[in-house]
Amino acid sequence: MATTRFHDHAPDVDGLYADLAAADLQPLWTQHGLLPLTPDGLTPHIWRWKTLRALAERSGELVGIDRGGDRRVISLAHPDLGGLPFATRTLWAGVQFLRGGELAPAHRHTPAALRFVLEGSGVWTLVDGDPVHMGPGDLVLTPSWAWHEHHNPGSEPMIWFDGLDLPLVRTLDAVFFEPGGEKLSEYEPARVSRSENLYGGAGLLPASEVREVARGQLTPGRASRLLAYRWAAADAALSRMIQATGQREASLRYAAPETGADIMPTLRAELHRVLAGHRTPTTRTAGSGVWVVHRGSGATVINGRRYRWTAGDMFVTPSWAAVDHEAADDADLFLLSDGPVLDALGLARRQETQRQDVLEDHAG
Amino acid sequence: MATTRFHDHAPDVDGLYADLAAADLQPLWTQHGLLPLTPDGLTPHIWRWKTLRALAERSGELVGIDRGGDRRVISLAHPDLGGLPFATRTLWAGVQFLRGGELAPAHRHTPAALRFVLEGSGVWTLVDGDPVHMGPGDLVLTPSWAWHEHHNPGSEPMIWFDGLDLPLVRTLDAVFFEPGGEKLSEYEPARVSRSENLYGGAGLLPASEVREVARGQLTPGRASRLLAYRWAAADAALSRMIQATGQREASLRYAAPETGADIMPTLRAELHRVLAGHRTPTTRTAGSGVWVVHRGSGATVINGRRYRWTAGDMFVTPSWAAVDHEAADDADLFLLSDGPVLDALGLARRQETQRQDVLEDHAG
Amino acid sequence: MATTRFHDHAPDVDGLYADLAAADLQPLWTQHGLLPLTPDGLTPHIWRWKTLRALAERSGELVGIDRGGDRRVISLAHPDLGGLPFATRTLWAGVQFLRGGELAPAHRHTPAALRFVLEGSGVWTLVDGDPVHMGPGDLVLTPSWAWHEHHNPGSEPMIWFDGLDLPLVRTLDAVFFEPGGEKLSEYEPARVSRSENLYGGAGLLPASEVREVARGQLTPGRASRLLAYRWAAADAALSRMIQATGQREASLRYAAPETGADIMPTLRAELHRVLAGHRTPTTRTAGSGVWVVHRGSGATVINGRRYRWTAGDMFVTPSWAAVDHEAADDADLFLLSDGPVLDALGLARRQETQRQDVLEDHAG
Amino acid sequence: MATTRFHDHAPDVDGLYADLAAADLQPLWTQHGLLPLTPDGLTPHIWRWKTLRALAERSGELVGIDRGGDRRVISLAHPDLGGLPFATRTLWAGVQFLRGGELAPAHRHTPAALRFVLEGSGVWTLVDGDPVHMGPGDLVLTPSWAWHEHHNPGSEPMIWFDGLDLPLVRTLDAVFFEPGGEKLSEYEPARVSRSENLYGGAGLLPASEVREVARGQLTPGRASRLLAYRWAAADAALSRMIQATGQREASLRYAAPETGADIMPTLRAELHRVLAGHRTPTTRTAGSGVWVVHRGSGATVINGRRYRWTAGDMFVTPSWAAVDHEAADDADLFLLSDGPVLDALGLARRQETQRQDVLEDHAG
Repeated sequence: MATTRFHDHAPDVDGLYADLAAADLQPLWTQHGLLPLTPDGLTPHIWRWKTLRALAERSGELVGIDRGGDRRVISLAHPDLGGLPFATRTLWAGVQFLRGGELAPAHRHTPAALRFVLEGSGVWTLVDGDPVHMGPGDLVLTPSWAWHEHHNPGSEPMIWFDGLDLPLVRTLDAVFFEPGGEKLSEYEPARVSRSENLYGGAGLLPASEVREVARGQLTPGRASRLLAYRWAAADAALSRMIQATGQREASLRYAAPETGADIMPTLRAELHRVLAGHRTPTTRTAGSGVWVVHRGSGATVINGRRYRWTAGDMFVTPSWAAVDHEAADDADLFLLSDGPVLDALGLARRQETQRQDVLEDHAG
Repeated sequence: MATTRFHDHAPDVDGLYADLAAADLQPLWTQHGLLPLTPDGLTPHIWRWKTLRALAERSGELVGIDRGGDRRVISLAHPDLGGLPFATRTLWAGVQFLRGGELAPAHRHTPAALRFVLEGSGVWTLVDGDPVHMGPGDLVLTPSWAWHEHHNPGSEPMIWFDGLDLPLVRTLDAVFFEPGGEKLSEYEPARVSRSENLYGGAGLLPASEVREVARGQLTPGRASRLLAYRWAAADAALSRMIQATGQREASLRYAAPETGADIMPTLRAELHRVLAGHRTPTTRTAGSGVWVVHRGSGATVINGRRYRWTAGDMFVTPSWAAVDHEAADDADLFLLSDGPVLDALGLARRQETQRQDVLEDHAG
Repeated sequence: MATTRFHDHAPDVDGLYADLAAADLQPLWTQHGLLPLTPDGLTPHIWRWKTLRALAERSGELVGIDRGGDRRVISLAHPDLGGLPFATRTLWAGVQFLRGGELAPAHRHTPAALRFVLEGSGVWTLVDGDPVHMGPGDLVLTPSWAWHEHHNPGSEPMIWFDGLDLPLVRTLDAVFFEPGGEKLSEYEPARVSRSENLYGGAGLLPASEVREVARGQLTPGRASRLLAYRWAAADAALSRMIQATGQREASLRYAAPETGADIMPTLRAELHRVLAGHRTPTTRTAGSGVWVVHRGSGATVINGRRYRWTAGDMFVTPSWAAVDHEAADDADLFLLSDGPVLDALGLARRQETQRQDVLEDHAG
Repeated sequence: MATTRFHDHAPDVDGLYADLAAADLQPLWTQHGLLPLTPDGLTPHIWRWKTLRALAERSGELVGIDRGGDRRVISLAHPDLGGLPFATRTLWAGVQFLRGGELAPAHRHTPAALRFVLEGSGVWTLVDGDPVHMGPGDLVLTPSWAWHEHHNPGSEPMIWFDGLDLPLVRTLDAVFFEPGGEKLSEYEPARVSRSENLYGGAGLLPASEVREVARGQLTPGRASRLLAYRWAAADAALSRMIQATGQREASLRYAAPETGADIMPTLRAELHRVLAGHRTPTTRTAGSGVWVVHRGSGATVINGRRYRWTAGDMFVTPSWAAVDHEAADDADLFLLSDGPVLDALGLARRQETQRQDVLEDHAG
């Protein structure tokens, strides 16, 4: 019998396909799109602060949060992901709203989380018992498997951006979860956490730590021991970088002081400053990102389409998209990405590309 | 207005949910199952060699493979994955059938692949130009972004197990693909590849390599430079391990000779030997695995259910399942897993657990 | 012929020894002390600030420093080292005196150097062209093979402690030296160096650096990119550590912000604070150290002998000596050690031991 | 008072120098040669096998070795090192002679040792209880702090080359030593050691090891777990490398199979093959080496001087010397060096330089 070319649908071939399906098998040669020339997974998407803010507040009015319950979080649900509450295939992103006087009780889970405070102050997040105060622009970490609970003892609400590696950890089937007990923790409402007291100096580490390093106990795959990165420090660092380089832009990566590695093995956080009137070079990066506009206004051009933004807006840049930013006012953008995952797995790629023409403005 | 408890469906709340959905947002508090106590992603599943072998051969008769076309591969499609041609959420697995005289032309892609030869001999796989001969029980690598093409100059067909990290790399939106040109490569059909000539000695590396190490050029995230692990060597290594330990079982990990790391940054390969009559301790491991029975017969007990197997059968062990093996005859099982991914991301967990009762036999 | 016991000096044996010596050979069995039970290399030694200060000033009056010449440095020459100008077998230590208006022209060498400022301010050290201002208590680095020159544009002299790995690098026969040209560098006398602008934030690194990390370009064996650690920051860090732990002592290790590793691959620098009236636990550490009293008064008990000190005194603690400190006033001690060398080579050991009795006071 | 130029010896300056000396201080500016432009530490030196062999045998006749005693070792004592029994400033090298029926009882020490067997067979070295058989051309390790004892149960003597990092470890004041008890170990005289049974497969490691790696327990600074590298394997590896490259020379580095790192953190071992008539490129390398001619005859040109050699000769190549080899017959040279130390400390340098003219032949 002569073999047929691919995709022929002779009766024999149809029978083969039916028998394969019945045996939980599939022919690879009829699969298209499994191996695209370059990543083609997602489209860009933007969510507006005005909408996010209003819906978070309405949730705060309508939906209670109490002991034993969940977090009051609204997830960015990328429309390309078929109803999953995920911003990209690897990143979960959302806004959490905690009213004055509210408490979110303790639990822990293997997905790692970070918070970037959007509005309000006066909340303490307890991370493995260490009370971490939260204020606008602060980045606060709750690493994988660390106990955490949120206390808002004041009268004002707080809203923060939540970023997690949950979609990735689900894909790895490595989600473990443990609820805390009934009892809320007592804590000293100091403005400086134990973690900052120990790890908050640049290049000034507890001497005891070196002995662990020498014994190989600072393993790959661990999170930062510094749990809070304050806005004032990040702001000053960007200013110094601009001072040092003379450029109209600067970007910093939040790093573990004791290793220089990313804050979490699965999550990278960066802060990008673009001065008024400047447009950044265009780059493509493997891996996806969620951007939060912290300050200023401007636009990001993604694959030739311009997305205008102001403070609080959030948008997704897909893997390998051509991306550049232009600032109308001095602007600061917080970036959450899965960069360390691609680095660790040998899949990181980055390319500077030529300045893209803006083909159209995004209407949204 | 008083806040409602979670999950109340007062009209206001329904309106909120509708407005959230319209804005590509979702309330987290109505999501159930995002954070299970332990991984609950997949059920175990087994595919029978008898079925696989017959369908692979029928495919060989009915579906051609020629220059410019695809590989003739049948994918294990786990029934829990909604029609995706994947064995687990991170692992692609299948059988490839290459008839005598057939050629699969060159291409390369970022997903990494390995082959474990099931039947036949005489095929050469060219990996970045290095011709690697393939025989039964051999493990052959085609690392991420390495050119590879398959030549079967003889008259007999060959069947091999294919394992890839494709589902994971797709989740990361990091698939890049490049087809080769029309021209097939010329090659010298030597039985020892260049890679084996250079890296095939235990602890005996080219001295030039140390200079790259010292310059930091052996980065994390790279694949093994040894491209073939021969059955005879693996067989002998297991025998020596049993000799050294006096146990009735042994298992080896295929490793990069120049770093000791896993063969690929995303894939772990192991070979497990269980002597007749022995039952292994029961363990749980975070991360999923695909097992291929290379030799012997016996059974694997997964979460209390017994799956009997003979040579050529393939089965999936889900993340955190309780797993042990018992051999009727001396048995060798090849294991493909995503272990290095969980290691690199700080998510690896492993637990020895008590010997499980066998609650029922799997009927399939 | 019957063999003799060791150390017999029958005529035949004497003849053998003579023939060995003539052939540039030695019998190992007559060597005693090559393998002591524990390190017995050096005795402790202390140098007094009063003496150091006076001799440094006299050198400043009597000995010129000018272009093309050397540094005006006085070396601590441990009396156990047979006239070598070294503080221990691995560490060079001394005081450098730079009068107002003096310049020390550029050169570079593979031995790495650090400065800890004892007195004066207003000097700029240019490190690979980056002008680093120096003030009391500051730690300033000139890594291996970095160009460096010193400028004292003011009228007051400055004295600083110099620490180098020169004895070790000589033992390794790895000293390379390159004199600079005739021309002195122009520089902007800013109080913040480029290195501090870029690396001076705790856990806030230039985002561009991660791309080098991912490409494996941050190799082991490199020095910190942060070249100055300011006294005010170190002082505050120690206060925070005491705040966090509630102990009467704290110690920090100066670390590279981008890796957490020691400031140099060969040199460790630490700062130890002991509050008034406290005596630290007693420890033994493999490897030698040079201590510089920065502030306060007290005593260090070494192998049961008490060495009293006040600010500016410098002393050596030998390898594996039992060491503890007791502070009369709040005291800060700077420590230079070869710790990273022992770590890297698998030779690090540390032991807490019982509080030692003070057998006698050192008279010096 | 006007300052004087360096090196003036006015009375005041002489008084200063006297006062410095009295205070255990030295002026740096009168030190010459501390910072040479390039390493100038040692001259090359060669020892002849004929002499070594004869003196080792005479030692065997004249000097006993018995329980409680030392090893019968003759040290290469470089004439530039002022009577120290060291081959270079970092490397100890010598020949050990063990007569038939002799035993060298157990001890352990932090200096690491390796043996390269020159003559004889039938000795077992017990390393932490694992009996390792020794034959000609085998490399056998006794890592830092591993118990080791030597048994020669046969009637023939054995001679091996001993290499240690003792000079370096002494410089670091990190020598610890522990004598074993009176009782000699019983052992099974198997030809394959436990270490070879477990780690002797190329890229085939015990699967249990990966779990230690993931937990960060394979720290830097550890030695190879494979304790014996057999001549037959090394010989075959060099042949395969020449096969793969088509060159007239090849060199291999003995490496830890589980990490790819050097066999010891302080010692590198290599084997270089040069085919008859070939002359290798000329290179300079920072760090010193001791070469042992295992097979063949030829010459090494060091800094323009030719040193002819035949099997058993041993010679030192100093740091940064220009070195190339030319083989009269096919030749194999074993190299012991301190390369990993320079790598770990950021001091490694290597340069290919132009073919050197042979200015003269070494007469010795």
